[in-house]
Amino acid sequence: MDFYFKRSYCGPVKLVIFDWAGTMIDYGSCAPAGAFIEGYRRQGIAVTMAQARAPMGLGKWEHIQAIGQMEPVAAQWQEKYGRSPTNSDIDKMYQDFVPVLLDILPNFTQLIPGAVETFNYLKKRGIKVAGTTGYFAEAMAICQAAAAKQGYTPDFTICATQVSAGRPLPWMIYRAMNELDVYPPAAVVKVGDTKPDIQAGLNAGVWTVGVAQAGNEVGLSESELHALPLEEQTRRVAKAKVTLAHEGSPFCGQHGGQFARNY
Amino acid sequence: MDFYFKRSYCGPVKLVIFDWAGTMIDYGSCAPAGAFIEGYRRQGIAVTMAQARAPMGLGKWEHIQAIGQMEPVAAQWQEKYGRSPTNSDIDKMYQDFVPVLLDILPNFTQLIPGAVETFNYLKKRGIKVAGTTGYFAEAMAICQAAAAKQGYTPDFTICATQVSAGRPLPWMIYRAMNELDVYPPAAVVKVGDTKPDIQAGLNAGVWTVGVAQAGNEVGLSESELHALPLEEQTRRVAKAKVTLAHEGSPFCGQHGGQFARNY
Amino acid sequence: MDFYFKRSYCGPVKLVIFDWAGTMIDYGSCAPAGAFIEGYRRQGIAVTMAQARAPMGLGKWEHIQAIGQMEPVAAQWQEKYGRSPTNSDIDKMYQDFVPVLLDILPNFTQLIPGAVETFNYLKKRGIKVAGTTGYFAEAMAICQAAAAKQGYTPDFTICATQVSAGRPLPWMIYRAMNELDVYPPAAVVKVGDTKPDIQAGLNAGVWTVGVAQAGNEVGLSESELHALPLEEQTRRVAKAKVTLAHEGSPFCGQHGGQFARNY
Amino acid sequence: MDFYFKRSYCGPVKLVIFDWAGTMIDYGSCAPAGAFIEGYRRQGIAVTMAQARAPMGLGKWEHIQAIGQMEPVAAQWQEKYGRSPTNSDIDKMYQDFVPVLLDILPNFTQLIPGAVETFNYLKKRGIKVAGTTGYFAEAMAICQAAAAKQGYTPDFTICATQVSAGRPLPWMIYRAMNELDVYPPAAVVKVGDTKPDIQAGLNAGVWTVGVAQAGNEVGLSESELHALPLEEQTRRVAKAKVTLAHEGSPFCGQHGGQFARNY
Amino acid sequence: MDFYFKRSYCGPVKLVIFDWAGTMIDYGSCAPAGAFIEGYRRQGIAVTMAQARAPMGLGKWEHIQAIGQMEPVAAQWQEKYGRSPTNSDIDKMYQDFVPVLLDILPNFTQLIPGAVETFNYLKKRGIKVAGTTGYFAEAMAICQAAAAKQGYTPDFTICATQVSAGRPLPWMIYRAMNELDVYPPAAVVKVGDTKPDIQAGLNAGVWTVGVAQAGNEVGLSESELHALPLEEQTRRVAKAKVTLAHEGSPFCGQHGGQFARNY
Amino acid sequence: MDFYFKRSYCGPVKLVIFDWAGTMIDYGSCAPAGAFIEGYRRQGIAVTMAQARAPMGLGKWEHIQAIGQMEPVAAQWQEKYGRSPTNSDIDKMYQDFVPVLLDILPNFTQLIPGAVETFNYLKKRGIKVAGTTGYFAEAMAICQAAAAKQGYTPDFTICATQVSAGRPLPWMIYRAMNELDVYPPAAVVKVGDTKPDIQAGLNAGVWTVGVAQAGNEVGLSESELHALPLEEQTRRVAKAKVTLAHEGSPFCGQHGGQFARNY
Repeated sequence: MDFYFKRSYCGPVKLVIFDWAGTMIDYGSCAPAGAFIEGYRRQGIAVTMAQARAPMGLGKWEHIQAIGQMEPVAAQWQEKYGRSPTNSDIDKMYQDFVPVLLDILPNFTQLIPGAVETFNYLKKRGIKVAGTTGYFAEAMAICQAAAAKQGYTPDFTICATQVSAGRPLPWMIYRAMNELDVYPPAAVVKVGDTKPDIQAGLNAGVWTVGVAQAGNEVGLSESELHALPLEEQTRRVAKAKVTLAHEGSPFCGQHGGQFARNY
Repeated sequence: MDFYFKRSYCGPVKLVIFDWAGTMIDYGSCAPAGAFIEGYRRQGIAVTMAQARAPMGLGKWEHIQAIGQMEPVAAQWQEKYGRSPTNSDIDKMYQDFVPVLLDILPNFTQLIPGAVETFNYLKKRGIKVAGTTGYFAEAMAICQAAAAKQGYTPDFTICATQVSAGRPLPWMIYRAMNELDVYPPAAVVKVGDTKPDIQAGLNAGVWTVGVAQAGNEVGLSESELHALPLEEQTRRVAKAKVTLAHEGSPFCGQHGGQFARNY
Repeated sequence: MDFYFKRSYCGPVKLVIFDWAGTMIDYGSCAPAGAFIEGYRRQGIAVTMAQARAPMGLGKWEHIQAIGQMEPVAAQWQEKYGRSPTNSDIDKMYQDFVPVLLDILPNFTQLIPGAVETFNYLKKRGIKVAGTTGYFAEAMAICQAAAAKQGYTPDFTICATQVSAGRPLPWMIYRAMNELDVYPPAAVVKVGDTKPDIQAGLNAGVWTVGVAQAGNEVGLSESELHALPLEEQTRRVAKAKVTLAHEGSPFCGQHGGQFARNY
Repeated sequence: MDFYFKRSYCGPVKLVIFDWAGTMIDYGSCAPAGAFIEGYRRQGIAVTMAQARAPMGLGKWEHIQAIGQMEPVAAQWQEKYGRSPTNSDIDKMYQDFVPVLLDILPNFTQLIPGAVETFNYLKKRGIKVAGTTGYFAEAMAICQAAAAKQGYTPDFTICATQVSAGRPLPWMIYRAMNELDVYPPAAVVKVGDTKPDIQAGLNAGVWTVGVAQAGNEVGLSESELHALPLEEQTRRVAKAKVTLAHEGSPFCGQHGGQFARNY
Repeated sequence: MDFYFKRSYCGPVKLVIFDWAGTMIDYGSCAPAGAFIEGYRRQGIAVTMAQARAPMGLGKWEHIQAIGQMEPVAAQWQEKYGRSPTNSDIDKMYQDFVPVLLDILPNFTQLIPGAVETFNYLKKRGIKVAGTTGYFAEAMAICQAAAAKQGYTPDFTICATQVSAGRPLPWMIYRAMNELDVYPPAAVVKVGDTKPDIQAGLNAGVWTVGVAQAGNEVGLSESELHALPLEEQTRRVAKAKVTLAHEGSPFCGQHGGQFARNY
Repeated sequence: MDFYFKRSYCGPVKLVIFDWAGTMIDYGSCAPAGAFIEGYRRQGIAVTMAQARAPMGLGKWEHIQAIGQMEPVAAQWQEKYGRSPTNSDIDKMYQDFVPVLLDILPNFTQLIPGAVETFNYLKKRGIKVAGTTGYFAEAMAICQAAAAKQGYTPDFTICATQVSAGRPLPWMIYRAMNELDVYPPAAVVKVGDTKPDIQAGLNAGVWTVGVAQAGNEVGLSESELHALPLEEQTRRVAKAKVTLAHEGSPFCGQHGGQFARNY
């Protein structure tokens, strides 16, 4: 055989998969952090906003566990309970987490500015839209209902709890591709605001876009962000871009920056 | 943002996914063709070996349909029944197909020479092995049991009927990756003997290797092939390599050719 | 480690480093050649314009030395002095060279047409501009003062005598980058009209642009060039472009050609 | 101009530039951290080992400043002094820092295992070796003298204080290249154990190699590291590799890992 | 030698080489197929349109031979003559072929819509145009005369019979380049409607463009094609594009599709 | 069309095309230079060895013309004849050139050391070998006969006079490919010792290898070269490599250098 042939995809993007909180709704990704803080507070443990945000992007159970493994939190736990938190401690908080989150969630379902315009732009061009989330199904249902009222109705949404493992693993993305019958990976874009979002996209072999300004990496609500001096706003958004770019998202700069400005 | 970062996979191959018939068992992929011929024979329609083989790689239902759409077969059907074959004709033959295939299948489960050595080579290096097939589950069970006795026991096997659609779509590959917890696609190799095998691999974004000599593209049992003059053997294998290479399999030549020679 | 990350610069050009004579001032790079001719003339040695130009781009001491090593010049020297020129001969001419050059230099400081527009274009976009030169500091001071009156005031200028070695070594470029705090090399462009200019840029790892028409490779003053038939002008400029392109300047063609036309 | 020519370097590596502490001497890069802790202790401020290490790779003045800007340290300072640390506070500690460091430094100048073999390997092949460091000249002199006794005598060493700014800026690298007359950047390799080392190499346009095991990212002395369970050692080294790889060091994996194991 | 230089062509396209039938004249490439059918008919052998078209792109002698080797045709021949067709049978039909073809050819010389506009577009830009064909010289003369009346007068035309071998070998292309004094291959584009056209272009190292809609791969005259339902037209053109793209023609898609639409 | 396919040649080198004088025979390419000198001498014009060599690689007629256009030669001609040399002058010397060359040629047909080993190496591997030359046919016949006696018998040789134009145009290469039925260009290597050799190879799209040591760029017979100090030999060969590399021959360095050393 004297020749080989390399096939390349030259068709259009057919599917864009958006993360939910911090990407399409809930500017600054504030809801989960608040719920984690409240969950630990009920155990008598003080968790700061920064600590609560750090593991953002993992499944909720793993997130609670990760907070408990942080040194200052672990120290408090040790002091209060004379031991490290066990899986059953995590289970308990995970169960406590649900009602707390469901209570506060409706306050955090507003679409990020520009989200609905982006969605409409894609749908008008025949591009399918899916959503992936670290939320469990009941929480997601609240978000979906609220988003639908504001005009955002992705063709398919899947929760980390509905596959064998959530981000940074690629299984939610493959499920969305299968469900919406879109392939190859080169026809798919994953958009998200956290490192595990970018990693999940790369692990699936699809294009990735990082959302800097409105996402968990800046981690401020729209009003909190705009209350800062302009230079500080710029600095924090730039830092978020650098963080997401380091994970391998090629579109956090000129393109992604512009893209993020839509929100 | 002044810099962007491109992530590249530099880890080892972690998973090799082999097609079953024509790739690991059943030299020449003879069983299905015989069953299709027998199926149409029971409807009073003569199908040649070449016709029976042409759509190889599709799911069985689609395969029966594709044979019926070939001009000479369609002409016979028209003459005999005064109409084209309908979906219910296909359904019927698909049901007829099963007992016929199950009857003849045990005669076609011998491992292709070199298959078990390849399998052992991979397992010794900690590489996972999966199987995908156009067979339905009951047929596959017969193959798996027979292959196991000969030493081939892949970590996971999945049938086209167990996902929303078989080859050339990538869903069986993604299911195998998820089940065996392997990512990204750059860590996975798909090996098969048909165009849809290669296409499914490319549609999933994984590496592809085409099996020329023992597969459906040559379409001769080991004894049939070796009964030919050596020059004719070489010509047919070369033609099969060119066919698979045209689909975008980069390893049908020096590498793939060598690889195929193991069988 | 399963992944590696390749960093790429995607920011803007931040610094353009122009050679002085033949690139920004002194159309045809005529001053130094005249001074070399005069210098050797004072030793009783006839040097042609073509000989005087050949080593252009080296430091002045090395330039005088290189002329002396040319076969016809060496032969005259041998005949006249019964030996090859020694380092102290070169030293002497180098000292003679200075007053001669300083005398004639003011006649050769006119900006090349388009130079000031290019400078203003860059400054308006926040791009820093530096100058490098084979001239010694006192000569450079004359050029800088004259250029400033015509509107060309680069942020930094450095002479070959102020670093350990001039072109084609990259040390002047690195000094300019350090002084103006610009990095990485991918943010820097070196523009020059001689082979050592292009080599110095490549040796520093920066972008290079060759100036063909107004530079030393054509080696004619503006009026001399325009006195030639148009076809001959075109032929000489094309030859200069090919010469600079051979050194590895990718922008002597469509881009560089266009660029050079500004002058 | 119908053709352009792209020049590529195909010569050998001519210069390897090693960081000092954590790369060639002082396994775990322990000296500076201890001195920073002691410096702040003398101001009545408790700094943990982890805090003291975090900004490693910066110049020493900036390092002291960076520690003071960390939230827990800043809070202690605020509480104790009723204000943030000023530049003159930093100046003072920087002056206090020197005698402390000079006192403890001799205990931290042992070559990392494999360093001298690597040095000899390079010198035997005619490759030049330089050292860059965040240390000031007096401290460096102690290290150089001690290293020389153990057989490590790089051709040139330069301190951050001897250029306009230290890592992650490329100026020390360019000074070393100039001093040792090596170009282009493609002939140079920068080896270091911190993020700013890798960044400085990339900012200079040279090859970069990250040292994981013996460096600041693991941050444990040889005996501390080996006291850990083997699995934990592996985990920490792997984490350090991932950190350095994220900055864009392509040789922290198969190559770099192997390289690091020499130490 | 420390550097190597890679020369790249950055000049314009200088020569476009068009196939004749199916590319510039004779929409659907209908003439030869009809003549082959008539030729075999005179031997008492029925050849279908699909069979007559299959080997399109070969030289005419080889084409007649290839038809005779097709199984159904070979079977008829065997039955009628008790043997396979010999070279002298092919010779005879080849001689019979000529008068038949020359008789019917004038009916098949109409320019494909858009051909003359494309030709004029290229000539206006100083780009040379050549034609290659599988026709013998006498047939070609009829086509050239008729095309000239419609405004298509390529600078040079060459027949497969005038070189040692026709397509897919590159000899006609090299002859056209030599005759029109155009090089390197990167300045040349080959346009054709058959697999051997694309292969010949790739074998010569030139750019290739596939013509899908009006060519042999769709194989329908303009009126036949437009008589089909629009969806079926689209399906057949898309299939032709995929076929030509598989051979390695990069411009059958967005570009080529658009290009083909000019016809 | 969603996919395109890029065909790449992955087969072996099938044809190596060697220049004759300076590449395979006549170390230092001394014969033609001597004949040119003698030719001009008979016109009363003194031509130096360096002048006689400069245009080496052109056809002989063009070579004589090019010498006459050199300034010092043109000046002599002008002085002696009161005009520039005309085409009929060139014609006359070209006719004079032939008997002179034919007389001296037998002294310059010795194979360069290593040439026959290289030829045998290639033939043993089934690689075809062709020769191209600027010599006219009668001179070539002398060389071929002498070379054959020494064991060098290329499969095909072609003279510049047998095609429309010699080097740097690619027509001799294409004729050799056609004659020996080898394609695509990626299967062909052109080896030569002059700039026009390298240019001809690049203009044909084939691989190029430059011969430095034994060729026209060094321009010394084997005994002349070895009579020089070793350092001077190295310097001249290195300079020749740089010259050929500048034209775009990627194999003058490590590879080509090694290759050239075979001679």
